[in-house]
Amino acid sequence: MRLPIHFLICARRFGVKLSADTGRRGVCGATMRLVQFCRRDQEGDVRVGVELEMGQGVVDLKDFDSSLPHTMKEFLETGERGMDCAHRALSSGQCVVPLPEVRLLPPVTDPEKVVCVGMNYRDHCLEQNAPIPEEPIIFSKFASAITGPFDDIKLPAESKEVDWEVELAFVIGRKGKHIKEEEALSYVAGFTVANDVSARDWQMRRNGKQWLLGKTFDSFCPLGPALVTTAALKDPHNLGIRCRVNGSTVQDSSTNQMIFKTEKLVAWVSQFVTLRPGDVFLTGTPPGVGVFRKPPVFLKRGVVVECEIDEIGVIRNTVI
Amino acid sequence: MRLPIHFLICARRFGVKLSADTGRRGVCGATMRLVQFCRRDQEGDVRVGVELEMGQGVVDLKDFDSSLPHTMKEFLETGERGMDCAHRALSSGQCVVPLPEVRLLPPVTDPEKVVCVGMNYRDHCLEQNAPIPEEPIIFSKFASAITGPFDDIKLPAESKEVDWEVELAFVIGRKGKHIKEEEALSYVAGFTVANDVSARDWQMRRNGKQWLLGKTFDSFCPLGPALVTTAALKDPHNLGIRCRVNGSTVQDSSTNQMIFKTEKLVAWVSQFVTLRPGDVFLTGTPPGVGVFRKPPVFLKRGVVVECEIDEIGVIRNTVI
Repeated sequence: MRLPIHFLICARRFGVKLSADTGRRGVCGATMRLVQFCRRDQEGDVRVGVELEMGQGVVDLKDFDSSLPHTMKEFLETGERGMDCAHRALSSGQCVVPLPEVRLLPPVTDPEKVVCVGMNYRDHCLEQNAPIPEEPIIFSKFASAITGPFDDIKLPAESKEVDWEVELAFVIGRKGKHIKEEEALSYVAGFTVANDVSARDWQMRRNGKQWLLGKTFDSFCPLGPALVTTAALKDPHNLGIRCRVNGSTVQDSSTNQMIFKTEKLVAWVSQFVTLRPGDVFLTGTPPGVGVFRKPPVFLKRGVVVECEIDEIGVIRNTVI
Repeated sequence: MRLPIHFLICARRFGVKLSADTGRRGVCGATMRLVQFCRRDQEGDVRVGVELEMGQGVVDLKDFDSSLPHTMKEFLETGERGMDCAHRALSSGQCVVPLPEVRLLPPVTDPEKVVCVGMNYRDHCLEQNAPIPEEPIIFSKFASAITGPFDDIKLPAESKEVDWEVELAFVIGRKGKHIKEEEALSYVAGFTVANDVSARDWQMRRNGKQWLLGKTFDSFCPLGPALVTTAALKDPHNLGIRCRVNGSTVQDSSTNQMIFKTEKLVAWVSQFVTLRPGDVFLTGTPPGVGVFRKPPVFLKRGVVVECEIDEIGVIRNTVI
């Protein structure tokens, strides 16, 4: 019996790196890049998949085991059973959808919460002469703002000041309340890239200075390209993070500038609310946003915004 | 053939009052009181029901037509088909669950959005010497805050200033964006009662003055007792609204004091986001909240809070 080439390639990176030390390593000790996708000829049929390396395609988990659910949120709810199954699917070399047939969707849709953190990069605070916060500043978007890693950002007629914000995002993998910092990473399924698109007029000067409306226009939360399990990252808090607008680098920092890191944010927010599988956290942006430039710069139709984080990937969204 | 007594009673009020004028009357022209419930001996099996008058019980819609979904959000997504079916179920006199076997749940759970409006009663603005807002002030709660009409409010250790706010709530019945005020009511499935429980310390002094955290502790959004279809109300903007704490009336006003009414709120928020079936709006509170009393009064363990709106009903939550 000959093993297919993509299995051999996968085995090296994705293979058997399972860890019992889930407190440190996340919900899943395995190193995987999970995605939501549909086949280009079957729009609307959402699937959870695991990316193969070297652009060799995506393993369709529901094809591998029809008892698995359609969406990432439901998949995460299956807990270890789902993760084990994903691992077996990856090792099987079966049920591979070639990349040209795959349309990537946001790695999570319809989360109960999109939790956002303001002013969470030291260098971003310096940029606006703002003090370093002593506690996390939490706001939110509605889940309706989420869009895919290569989908368009729709410039609303209602704003003249739409801005970019590259952010490290993470996704909750299991239910919890009053989670301790020491155990927080075991509640995280993995990390992804977000653009916290922001209408500065609505965020800063309208709506009684409540940020929600300026942050939550439809399409204002591109996410992706994959949900990278925690164990697949060397250190989520030491990753290059950058944003390019029409190819020019406008944000370029490291997640080591984050004031409140993943563990603290999970512990903090879970004082208030029960966290559930699929909940998305956007952890704040580094300096270089348009509104603090002199003169300020905002997004226009036709512009392409790329948000990139080392080891996770890049999302690329055209403003229309 | 003899018709059962509850059918005769229902026929008078719930009977055949269907209207083609949906623009004014809401998603459903019929007058019904929709609920989510489970049987006391089958916790976890969520059902949608229609209340019979005079405490005669609830018609179990899934028992009547097994193709109907379990939850109100999914039921609303079925649109007219579901509403027609609910009507037929009510007229059938069948599938009635007696009230003692019913545990009422919040009329909607897991909405994509809980949209809240601040400073939306003239008399509440006067109470705090605040100007009448020129635009709606929109903030949000996470759906995890929603709890049932007779469930407990859990006082969090993290706050010393938990306050009450009786509010008229409404629920979106069909998908829409950029909805015109003239058509807005046709997107509303119906109305219910909410308590916008608020931790004033977190709302007013912490979290960078973003209200979210103070508003969204688990159990901070009691809802119910029923989703009353728009056509069943004489005028949602002319209803007595009151809150009692341990039997003493602390808020007592009329929804005619609302600055931005349902139509305006639907139109306003749908500029920003696509509204979907199940989305909940809390429309602001009248005067009499604890924080503006002299001296301020906050909720303590053991206290019972009742929120009541004429023609809709009362929710009663014990603080634990």
